[in-house]
Amino acid sequence: MDIKEYVIEKASLAKTAARKMAILNTDTKNNALLAMADALISNMDTIIEANGVDMSFGKEKGLSDSLLDRLMLDKKRIEAMAQGLRDVASLDDPIGEALRMWKRPNNLKIAQVRVPLGVIGIIYEARPNVTVDAAALCIKSGNAVILRGGSEAINSNKTVARIISEAGEKAGLPQGAVSLIENTDRDAVNVMLKLNKYIDVIIPRGGAGLINTVVQNSTVPVIETGVGNCHLYVDDSADLARAIDITVNAKTQRPAVCNTIETLLVHKDVAEKFLPEVAKVLGSLGVELRGCQVTQSIITCKAATEEDYETEFLDLILAVKVVDSLDDAIEHIYRYSSKHSESILTNNYANSQRFLNEVDAAAVYVNASTRFTDGSEFGFGAEIGISTQKLHARGPMGLKELTSSKYIIYGEGQVR
Amino acid sequence: MDIKEYVIEKASLAKTAARKMAILNTDTKNNALLAMADALISNMDTIIEANGVDMSFGKEKGLSDSLLDRLMLDKKRIEAMAQGLRDVASLDDPIGEALRMWKRPNNLKIAQVRVPLGVIGIIYEARPNVTVDAAALCIKSGNAVILRGGSEAINSNKTVARIISEAGEKAGLPQGAVSLIENTDRDAVNVMLKLNKYIDVIIPRGGAGLINTVVQNSTVPVIETGVGNCHLYVDDSADLARAIDITVNAKTQRPAVCNTIETLLVHKDVAEKFLPEVAKVLGSLGVELRGCQVTQSIITCKAATEEDYETEFLDLILAVKVVDSLDDAIEHIYRYSSKHSESILTNNYANSQRFLNEVDAAAVYVNASTRFTDGSEFGFGAEIGISTQKLHARGPMGLKELTSSKYIIYGEGQVR
Repeated sequence: MDIKEYVIEKASLAKTAARKMAILNTDTKNNALLAMADALISNMDTIIEANGVDMSFGKEKGLSDSLLDRLMLDKKRIEAMAQGLRDVASLDDPIGEALRMWKRPNNLKIAQVRVPLGVIGIIYEARPNVTVDAAALCIKSGNAVILRGGSEAINSNKTVARIISEAGEKAGLPQGAVSLIENTDRDAVNVMLKLNKYIDVIIPRGGAGLINTVVQNSTVPVIETGVGNCHLYVDDSADLARAIDITVNAKTQRPAVCNTIETLLVHKDVAEKFLPEVAKVLGSLGVELRGCQVTQSIITCKAATEEDYETEFLDLILAVKVVDSLDDAIEHIYRYSSKHSESILTNNYANSQRFLNEVDAAAVYVNASTRFTDGSEFGFGAEIGISTQKLHARGPMGLKELTSSKYIIYGEGQVR
Repeated sequence: MDIKEYVIEKASLAKTAARKMAILNTDTKNNALLAMADALISNMDTIIEANGVDMSFGKEKGLSDSLLDRLMLDKKRIEAMAQGLRDVASLDDPIGEALRMWKRPNNLKIAQVRVPLGVIGIIYEARPNVTVDAAALCIKSGNAVILRGGSEAINSNKTVARIISEAGEKAGLPQGAVSLIENTDRDAVNVMLKLNKYIDVIIPRGGAGLINTVVQNSTVPVIETGVGNCHLYVDDSADLARAIDITVNAKTQRPAVCNTIETLLVHKDVAEKFLPEVAKVLGSLGVELRGCQVTQSIITCKAATEEDYETEFLDLILAVKVVDSLDDAIEHIYRYSSKHSESILTNNYANSQRFLNEVDAAAVYVNASTRFTDGSEFGFGAEIGISTQKLHARGPMGLKELTSSKYIIYGEGQVR
């Protein structure tokens, strides 16, 4: 069987499964999720063994320490994956919820009700936990899911996917509800991206390269996730002590994630006071600063290039720019932002309102760290990614964002 | 300037305009819509003259009568376009509406508020009224719009777009908020479909060929509209007198539109009684029936082919199939439906529930004509099309479906 036939066979099974998933009752879905959790725990040794093969290959191939860390599965991480399944089981089922219902003058009763999307394709990179997290959210929201992980994690993914899909099917999920494309050739992805007849949406999870490839080549609708070139703007009226805490948190609490800031914008009237103080704390935490000319006249740091302002460092590097006004800050953000998360620190009411209104991003903050742009922090219970596009879903995507709706209309013989 | 430069210049202006549109107050938008309406009325002769050029070309080119009718603008139709603008002005502004607002345990206050999509590209065919209708809805929902109509209507579209964009700008819309791509080469469309940097969403309005081209080639997110292969299923418990009325309405009230039925499914236990009666009425209205073998054993009609069941006739033709059960009807619909509008006529409660749950379409009816799938009939006031995809919007799309959302977060120094 060639790659195309192989992927279509999986997708066709998923499409058949999706019909059954859409009308599966909540208890069955929850029981399947709990059974999958139990199966992960009882097969822990098998998973760790398979992961060991990936880790050995990874070391041979010379993967970076941070990539190897993402790849690694141990007892604690497998327990966390199992807990993730249990957490999703405990969330409310979004399917069947009526978003609105109303009666027309001709007495037609129209309800807009939540339904699954159908078949969701997830294309992801190194982390094998995505296999479980994504499957859990897709199942709970009544979808079938086709997973396609990266080659580095293929042994872990194959083992984990087999364990959870077997456990799920034994507990009542239709065959094919969770499937993994075991072929790690790029061609397999290219086939997926054209299967409009079988796949309803594709969600890429990974770096900018992966996301761009998917967006450029997919005829299936895509939800873009992740790239975060986020800014923190310290206005002239900001509480500067608080501003230091928030800058440090937004840059250093977890530097490699998308809601971390990459550029600090500082109003000129507070730059001379604020920059030396914040530079001291950031420096002690190992953050490298790259500043504009004005910044360099106040503190010692490397020069920021145009490219720095465009870059999602995902590292302990922070570009710094001194701006003349709120307008300048908003202009800089408009020019460079990936529209993920943006924050203003201010005590000026009018400025806070202008920033909230005029900055276009999935999440816009006043006086808080951008690190809160996250499904759990928003209270969604779980998240499949953070959408940076405007269509369908924007910001952290939980169960509801994995659904569509349909109108159901109760008539009594009405004609037009 | 080559085509690519030309389209990018328009798109770039639209992107700049979109930033201003997003924060324009409702009064300004409404005044602009009313000014556009007035301008259409006061320039009626100019419009009719330009339309006359298109009509002459169309006749020379041998366009069908129905295409010529769609193309034609007269006093009454221009007045209707103006009234459409006034109607949209009177609708509630969707922008700024908070979809939900909540407080987290750490006291962060999070609101999800409605914002515009940004720049909307509309690619459409013969009807020049789309130029006005689409512009009105995009403006009211705070978007900039790039219109690209078909070559048949180019003179009408140029004139109408110039009149409304001038009137709109004079009344306070930013320059470029409404623009028309005046180049009717296919290449202009191909450029638009790749402008992810400038255009946020593309909505094709037209036949299956146009929609397919857009879906297959666009890297910009697309909302698919329109193709309607709709079914009416007459269950064994249906009220047959009412079933005749609904069948006639759903097929003949306006045969060329997407929410008209193309196939009639009839339960075998009522086929012998129902088919002769409905065939008589449909025949008297000029409807050609194409039936399955069982149908042909009951009434005289042409044989239905596999292709007939797949076809959106958009004409006075109706495929007919006798089915053994509700399951068979649901299977037939699953196989052939374009997931637009589907209806069951029944007095059996369990069957009505199964049909509503198991049939996957934008609108699913019990005991009513599919002709109600329409923005006005749903009470949305206006409609830019009917989405047949599952992502972002499904079914009739009004103002709300032309919006996205963003999260705004009020903090007081929170860090994670």
